[in-house]
Amino acid sequence: MRRGLTALALAAWLAATPVQSAPTEMKPSPAEDAFITLGTMGGPVPSPDRSQPANALLHAGRVYLVDAGDGSVGQLARAGILLPRVRAVFLSHLHADHTGGLSAVLALRNQTNQRQPITIYGPPGTRELVAGLVAAMQPAARAGYGIPGQPWQAPAETVNVIEMRDGATLSVDGMRITAVQNSHYDFAPGSIEDRNYQSFSLRFDLPGRSIVYTGDTGPSPAVEQLARGADLLVSEMIDMGGTLAVVDRNSPDMPAEARRQLEQHLSTHHLTPGAVGQLAARAGVGALVITHFAAGTPDPDRTARYLADIRTHFAGRVTLANDLDRF
Amino acid sequence: MRRGLTALALAAWLAATPVQSAPTEMKPSPAEDAFITLGTMGGPVPSPDRSQPANALLHAGRVYLVDAGDGSVGQLARAGILLPRVRAVFLSHLHADHTGGLSAVLALRNQTNQRQPITIYGPPGTRELVAGLVAAMQPAARAGYGIPGQPWQAPAETVNVIEMRDGATLSVDGMRITAVQNSHYDFAPGSIEDRNYQSFSLRFDLPGRSIVYTGDTGPSPAVEQLARGADLLVSEMIDMGGTLAVVDRNSPDMPAEARRQLEQHLSTHHLTPGAVGQLAARAGVGALVITHFAAGTPDPDRTARYLADIRTHFAGRVTLANDLDRF
Repeated sequence: MRRGLTALALAAWLAATPVQSAPTEMKPSPAEDAFITLGTMGGPVPSPDRSQPANALLHAGRVYLVDAGDGSVGQLARAGILLPRVRAVFLSHLHADHTGGLSAVLALRNQTNQRQPITIYGPPGTRELVAGLVAAMQPAARAGYGIPGQPWQAPAETVNVIEMRDGATLSVDGMRITAVQNSHYDFAPGSIEDRNYQSFSLRFDLPGRSIVYTGDTGPSPAVEQLARGADLLVSEMIDMGGTLAVVDRNSPDMPAEARRQLEQHLSTHHLTPGAVGQLAARAGVGALVITHFAAGTPDPDRTARYLADIRTHFAGRVTLANDLDRF
Repeated sequence: MRRGLTALALAAWLAATPVQSAPTEMKPSPAEDAFITLGTMGGPVPSPDRSQPANALLHAGRVYLVDAGDGSVGQLARAGILLPRVRAVFLSHLHADHTGGLSAVLALRNQTNQRQPITIYGPPGTRELVAGLVAAMQPAARAGYGIPGQPWQAPAETVNVIEMRDGATLSVDGMRITAVQNSHYDFAPGSIEDRNYQSFSLRFDLPGRSIVYTGDTGPSPAVEQLARGADLLVSEMIDMGGTLAVVDRNSPDMPAEARRQLEQHLSTHHLTPGAVGQLAARAGVGALVITHFAAGTPDPDRTARYLADIRTHFAGRVTLANDLDRF
């Protein structure tokens, strides 16, 4: 009975719906470049008041996701960005809090018949990640809208993957992108783990502006070098005191050695406020944006402490990002 | 240097973080059964003000996801539910708006070392979906927290899949669950497509309460039969007028035949407010909750029209659900 439903009719329906629901005042001007912090809470434990790590880079009217944690699709909608505008995704590393929303990005593109391929750039392992997500999309792709004879497109045809290596430079739509391996992972240089599991910081050189995104990292000379002279540094940060206070409250019997090791892990794989300030100062960046909070949204006291620690080293403009902030 | 970081230390950190950030007043009482509408907007086009389809069924202190659209993990956190409490996921069908958030559920469980297996119940194709998602988790699982020598668990060991068939009845943690094939898909009965691609409505008979969730469906005698006498019917609904008005505004040149086909598709694969009212009345349910809105959050006029259409047929209590409502 519904055999005759045309792709035109479906496409019109799918394309039409968001026009009514997207708040037009939030729609970015196509010509304006921007970096939007879609999700500003570090994982892997989800937060009730901030989304997991995801960002949108806007350049020349196109949109690029920079990390894609749980809820990226919803956060894009809240930023007034239609999903089909997303041309590519850059993954800093493959921890689930930075990739958990990629499945929905790819599968919803497929369900809305987006035929323009999307490209996923990421560290080694990205090909395996995306291959799994594409395989997961097969049953829904074949079922389509449940209309007999409806044509369907193989999900793999709409997704490309480019794995980056340390020092990679790419040219994408008029941007130059540089990836360097940072210190979020602790594998011995040259080991097989070090070759297979890498965490990147990313630099986006747009025609009029340079933006560096640390992803997750500890202190790292390579990241300092990458960030040199950038107009904007978007940096992760860990609240050691806040996180350890919670640990102490919940695990008062933790052996001293285990606690020392945990502290070492957090402080060498992540950046304290002081370390962020040092990074920004040494790199001589124009402005600093903090994201990837740990231990909940900071209250005014903690905010003041963060800023004081950062400003001990860095005299430029500092912003603690909220979800959907635009820089 | 960090080789000695113990599983204890990591586990303490991971377990500790949410205690600070989850709003304790929202934590459900372990003994209280409830159905929470985590996401109430139908997809596949994401909405800025409502999450994609997902629900949490609470029974005897345990949590079951019923569909898992984009952002399910974040919505669980906003409902005060810690991810490790989720024992199983029931998928009504495999459209991406109902499954896009499953990847994050599984991957974040893995990243936080949840060893208790989670079970995914769903229609034919669920095994293929989950196999893909599990394969996608491999690189992050092997990398762990970037600590040399850290043990890791194969993601497949923490996920089970049970594919249901039309009429399946299951016993899970003291609940009886029944799945029936509904009319969201339109394949000829007995065809290979009909066997491979099925959309289910689900009934949850708890010791003190029965809840039926339509998933996505058009009018269906099987769903009426399933819902007979249920205390609560949680039903999808389509706003034909609202959706077609948007189509007409954006595609004024759509051929009449294509528009007729689109209308037929929407009205036979989904439930108009009148059809929802008829379903609730014929099944004799105790109360009706509407979810899976189309064409944006309804304004007061549309809300009044929905309710009037429903009440033409059904005299019981009707609620239009919001995200995070609890029933």
